[in-house]
Amino acid sequence: MNKRILLKIRYNGASFVGWQVQKNGRSVQETMQDALEKIYGSRPDVTGCSRTDSGVHALEYCLCYDPPHPMEIKRILPALNSVLPNAISVRACSEVEHDFHPRYHAVGKEYIYRYYDGYAPDPFRDGFSYHEKQILNVERMEKAARYFEGKHDFGAFMSVGSKIEDTVRTIYYAEVKRDGEEIIFRIAGDGFLYNMVRIMAGTLLFVGLGRIDPEEISAIIEAKDRANCGKTMPAYGLYLNHVFYDIKEVEKYAPKR
Amino acid sequence: MNKRILLKIRYNGASFVGWQVQKNGRSVQETMQDALEKIYGSRPDVTGCSRTDSGVHALEYCLCYDPPHPMEIKRILPALNSVLPNAISVRACSEVEHDFHPRYHAVGKEYIYRYYDGYAPDPFRDGFSYHEKQILNVERMEKAARYFEGKHDFGAFMSVGSKIEDTVRTIYYAEVKRDGEEIIFRIAGDGFLYNMVRIMAGTLLFVGLGRIDPEEISAIIEAKDRANCGKTMPAYGLYLNHVFYDIKEVEKYAPKR
Repeated sequence: MNKRILLKIRYNGASFVGWQVQKNGRSVQETMQDALEKIYGSRPDVTGCSRTDSGVHALEYCLCYDPPHPMEIKRILPALNSVLPNAISVRACSEVEHDFHPRYHAVGKEYIYRYYDGYAPDPFRDGFSYHEKQILNVERMEKAARYFEGKHDFGAFMSVGSKIEDTVRTIYYAEVKRDGEEIIFRIAGDGFLYNMVRIMAGTLLFVGLGRIDPEEISAIIEAKDRANCGKTMPAYGLYLNHVFYDIKEVEKYAPKR
Repeated sequence: MNKRILLKIRYNGASFVGWQVQKNGRSVQETMQDALEKIYGSRPDVTGCSRTDSGVHALEYCLCYDPPHPMEIKRILPALNSVLPNAISVRACSEVEHDFHPRYHAVGKEYIYRYYDGYAPDPFRDGFSYHEKQILNVERMEKAARYFEGKHDFGAFMSVGSKIEDTVRTIYYAEVKRDGEEIIFRIAGDGFLYNMVRIMAGTLLFVGLGRIDPEEISAIIEAKDRANCGKTMPAYGLYLNHVFYDIKEVEKYAPKR
């Protein structure tokens, strides 16, 4: 039996309706299958690490497939990149055990949300980072983000209408940092509810603008009411940044405090 | 008489056929005029600091217009940004003397050319930076760039067919620096010939790949033969970064050595 192949890809979410095959547009999944079909001559199934929403970017998305026939491992990455559109790139390729599952074997994921503040919009950040005209207080945002850490019922941070029943998740770490005009919210956890990071990012935005106090976050979590949170931020500021397959790796990515 | 207004704008060159009004597509010039017409109710002429080519980006492009009627200076920037497409942003707005000319009064310009190297392309650099799969030797490129500095006849670094007769230009400084996978070539001078920076960037690329030695640059300049240079690099890696209106300002931007 051929070994299963694990690909780590990066993609610009603006070009896609998300990972999963949809009727209303081009998905990352089918684009990857098209590319694999071109290099193997037949079309393998591909399994992704998560269903990412339309417009969300990925700096590192993991997927697996069983190769229809053997191909030298070092040839796969350049072959795929030569047929993929510019909006997707294969960044790493490796063999894994044939029962490896990119979703079920993941122990966590890290997302980032990008904002920038300042008097004028920036054409080079358009579609990549959320513009806030008012200056954000990053110290307040960082203080608030810490309250997300740990095991909580995050029912408040889920889009209304979602049918998930178990809304308890563990957040490994959360931080907010400034780099010039750019503000990065980085969060890792064992799982995320529908729109959870985008609602958290919107809540932190309100904290940065002074409309919510950092100390209110605990009460907002406890009340489990979506209405207490900030707005759901647009997809284009959100990036899947890393998938953890080993819990020991979390420490390496966690902020040094 | 109303004071002349100087705008500093930033734009993504991918959306435009360059600064100047063209028949074959949308120019930055007419897009600015459209926006000014929307906020003033009549359409002023606009004068730019240079004719930038199709696809070239600008982090700072300067232009002037005479306002059809007075408008409070601090209102102009947000008013324009509210009507401009996302690909252009006004970053600064000031009053200048009514005889100020953004091109004739410029004493120099700074351009940057962006490359990145590495085994895989990056969707988030696509259209913003030139991808070279082989690792570039930046020390060699930096050494070569220094030979551009000073007053030289740069006839070799001009696209064939250009009708300019005086091809002597003074380069204030030139440097090449690495930041992770990203390599930045930064150059300032009193003027640039047609495609000069893109041909210089292509020549430095060949130096970084070992196909031209840094020490050969002087002879390449002296021979005045385009054929000795590297290729003309694509427009999307080139950015107009700054326009100098005061020669004393050059020192502030020059690399600290």
